[in-house]
Amino acid sequence: MTVQTPINEPLLLRADRDGVAWLTLNRPQARNALSVGLMAALDDALAALADDPSVRVVVIAGAGPAFCAGHDLRELRANPGAEAYAALFAQCSALMLRIVRLPKPVIARVHGVATAAGCQLVASCDLAVAADTARFATPGVNIGLFCSTPMVALSRAVGRKPAMEMLLTGELIDAARAREIGLVNRVVPEAGLDGAVAELAGRIAAKSPLTLAIGKEAFYRQAEMELAAAYRYASEVMTRNMLTRDAGEGIDAFLAKRAPSWTGT
Amino acid sequence: MTVQTPINEPLLLRADRDGVAWLTLNRPQARNALSVGLMAALDDALAALADDPSVRVVVIAGAGPAFCAGHDLRELRANPGAEAYAALFAQCSALMLRIVRLPKPVIARVHGVATAAGCQLVASCDLAVAADTARFATPGVNIGLFCSTPMVALSRAVGRKPAMEMLLTGELIDAARAREIGLVNRVVPEAGLDGAVAELAGRIAAKSPLTLAIGKEAFYRQAEMELAAAYRYASEVMTRNMLTRDAGEGIDAFLAKRAPSWTGT
Amino acid sequence: MTVQTPINEPLLLRADRDGVAWLTLNRPQARNALSVGLMAALDDALAALADDPSVRVVVIAGAGPAFCAGHDLRELRANPGAEAYAALFAQCSALMLRIVRLPKPVIARVHGVATAAGCQLVASCDLAVAADTARFATPGVNIGLFCSTPMVALSRAVGRKPAMEMLLTGELIDAARAREIGLVNRVVPEAGLDGAVAELAGRIAAKSPLTLAIGKEAFYRQAEMELAAAYRYASEVMTRNMLTRDAGEGIDAFLAKRAPSWTGT
Repeated sequence: MTVQTPINEPLLLRADRDGVAWLTLNRPQARNALSVGLMAALDDALAALADDPSVRVVVIAGAGPAFCAGHDLRELRANPGAEAYAALFAQCSALMLRIVRLPKPVIARVHGVATAAGCQLVASCDLAVAADTARFATPGVNIGLFCSTPMVALSRAVGRKPAMEMLLTGELIDAARAREIGLVNRVVPEAGLDGAVAELAGRIAAKSPLTLAIGKEAFYRQAEMELAAAYRYASEVMTRNMLTRDAGEGIDAFLAKRAPSWTGT
Repeated sequence: MTVQTPINEPLLLRADRDGVAWLTLNRPQARNALSVGLMAALDDALAALADDPSVRVVVIAGAGPAFCAGHDLRELRANPGAEAYAALFAQCSALMLRIVRLPKPVIARVHGVATAAGCQLVASCDLAVAADTARFATPGVNIGLFCSTPMVALSRAVGRKPAMEMLLTGELIDAARAREIGLVNRVVPEAGLDGAVAELAGRIAAKSPLTLAIGKEAFYRQAEMELAAAYRYASEVMTRNMLTRDAGEGIDAFLAKRAPSWTGT
Repeated sequence: MTVQTPINEPLLLRADRDGVAWLTLNRPQARNALSVGLMAALDDALAALADDPSVRVVVIAGAGPAFCAGHDLRELRANPGAEAYAALFAQCSALMLRIVRLPKPVIARVHGVATAAGCQLVASCDLAVAADTARFATPGVNIGLFCSTPMVALSRAVGRKPAMEMLLTGELIDAARAREIGLVNRVVPEAGLDGAVAELAGRIAAKSPLTLAIGKEAFYRQAEMELAAAYRYASEVMTRNMLTRDAGEGIDAFLAKRAPSWTGT
C-alpha cells in the first residue's frame, strides 16, 4: 500500500479536454492511497481549477487497478501522535470541503474499489459515474478505526440504514447497490466508463459556467437551512441569477428557438 | 408558452367530489406556465380551501398536454429588474410554502411534463401520483437560470446525487426513475391516472380531518429539529391529539371493531 | 390486544449468544404491544446492556405472530388525561432515544407486522433485517391518532414522500418496499431470518467494541451538524480513535496481514 511512486512520476495527473479537466490520482501501486503528498497535490490542483476560465467541469479518476483505497495507513502509523493525526484529518476534511465549495461541478469516475476516504471522495463529488465492476466500502471498522470523517460525506449522500450497514460491517457493496442507495448516479460497463463520463461532463460543460457556479453554491447552502429561510435565500440567488447577462441571453435564445451563447457574465 | 387563455376562461378550475377538491391549472396552450396570474389564482384557491370544512384533501392537476412547464418566461422577460424578479420569486416561494403549510393533504396528479417550478410543485405536494408517460426536469441550467428555488423542494424530496444530476444536466427523467428517487409515490398507466388519484385521495379523505391537520403540520415541523427536540415536540403533539374527541372515538371504534365516526373535533 | 401475559411469564426475554444479546418482546397474544410494563422492561434491559462487556451487539425481536403492534391501546384509554398521555409518550420517546444512544449496534429482527410504535422501533434501530413476509405501517391515522412520535424515527430513515404516504394512508407496505425506501437493510425468507440476523450480528460483534461505540455515537451526532462543523467534530473523533490501542493493533495487524486482537481499549 505504500510502494513508492517512481521518482519524477507526479502524484497527480491533469489532462484538459473540451473544457473538462481530468485529474487522475497517480499512485497505482498504492491503489491511490491518499498520502499527505497526494492530498496536497489534489487540493492544489482544485484550487488552481477554481479560477481557470478554460475549465468548466472537473473529473476525478484513479490510475491503475483501483479508484482510491483511502488513507495511507503506513504513513499514518509512521507519524504518530494526536497532533499529527489531527493535522491529517484536518487536511483531508479541507480537501473534501474544497470539492463541495469548488465553483465548478466535480464528477467522480469510479472503477475498481473506492474505500474509506476513497469512498468519501465519491460521496463528496457532485456526481459519480461507476463501472459495473466498481465496489465501495467504509472498512475502517475492520482495523479498529471507524470511518468517522468518511461518514460525514456518506451519510449526506445515502439513507441512514444503508450508511450504517456499510459503516458497521465494513463490507463492500457493488455498483448496482451503490446506485440504488444514491451513492453514484450512473453505472456503465467498464469499457464504456470514460465515454460515459466524457458525455456527462460534456453536457454540463456546455452550460453557462456562471450559472453552474451560482447554482452549485446555492445547492449546498440551502440544504442546511430550514425551509422558509431556504426559500428566502434561493429567491435572492435566482434574482441575482436573472440579472446576469447569461440568463437574459439564455431565455431570449430559448424563446427564439436558437442556441444560446454564453459569456460567463 | 404565452398563448393567452381565451377571455372568460379562468386560469384555474376547481371541482369538488367526495370531500376532495381538484384544482386544475388551466393555461393548456402555455403548458400551464405559472404566470403571476395563475400563481395568484392557485394561492387564493388554496387559502380558501384551508378553511373549507367540506374539503379534506386537495389534488393539483394540469389541463392539456402538460402538468406544468414552470415560470412564464416571456412574462418574466417583459418585466425586468431586480424588484420585479424578487417579487416573482417571493410569490412563487410563498405559494410553495402555502402547500406545505396547508392543513390538508395535497396530492399532485402528474401527466406530461413537470419542469422547473412545475417540478417544484410536484416536490412540494405531500404526495404525487404520476402517469407512466410523465417526465420531470429542472432545466433552468439550459437557459442560464439555475433552478435554485425549485431545488429547495427537490433536494428535500430526493437524495443529493439524483437532485444534482437533474439540476446540472437539466435533462428529463421518466416516471419510473422519479419514483425510484422518491419524487413521486405511485406510477400508473395514463388511462388510470384519475382513478388512482381519486382512490388515494378518497382513502385519505375518510380519515379525521383534524387528525390529518395535526399530523401534517407536525411532520414538516419536526423534520427540521434535532432528534431529542423532535421527540419532545412530537410527544406534545400526540398528547394534544389524544385529547381530541376523534382520537377517543377512533380508538374506541377500533377496540369495538366498528367503523369510527369523525366530527373533526 | 391486551390479553394478559401468563403470570410468571416475563414481558421481555434475553438470550446471549457469541457476544450478541437477543431481546425478545414477549407479549405474543397482544402482538407485543408496548405496554408501560414492556417499555420499562426493554428500557431497563438496554440500560443494563450498555455496560455489559460480554455483549457487543443487541438484537430486538418479537415472540409470536408479530414483531410489535405499537402502543397498548386499551391501556392507553384506561389511563386518560393529559398527564398520563404525556408520561406515556415521554417514556416511549426516551426508549427510542436510548436505542440511538446505546454504545452498541442494535439490529431489529422483523417478522409479521411492525406497526405504529412497532414500526418506530424498526426505524430507530441502527440496522433491520426483515422476513419477506413482514409488513410495516404507521396506521394511527385510522384511529384518529396520527403517528407523530413514530414519524420522528420514520422520517429520518426514509424519504419524505414515502414517509408521508405511510402516515397519511395508514396502509401496510411489504418488506420489499420497506427495503426500497430504506426502512430495512435486508429481506430474507422467513425460515432464514434468525440465521441472517445471527450472521450479520456476528460479523459486527467481531469488531472492536470501542471502535463501534465511538463510531455509532459520532454517526448520529454529526448527522445533525452543518457540513463544516461535522467535519471538525468527526476529525476530533478520528484523532481520538487513532489514539486507542485497538486502532494501532488493527492497523498493524492489517499491514502484517494477520487477524487483529481487540481489547476494547
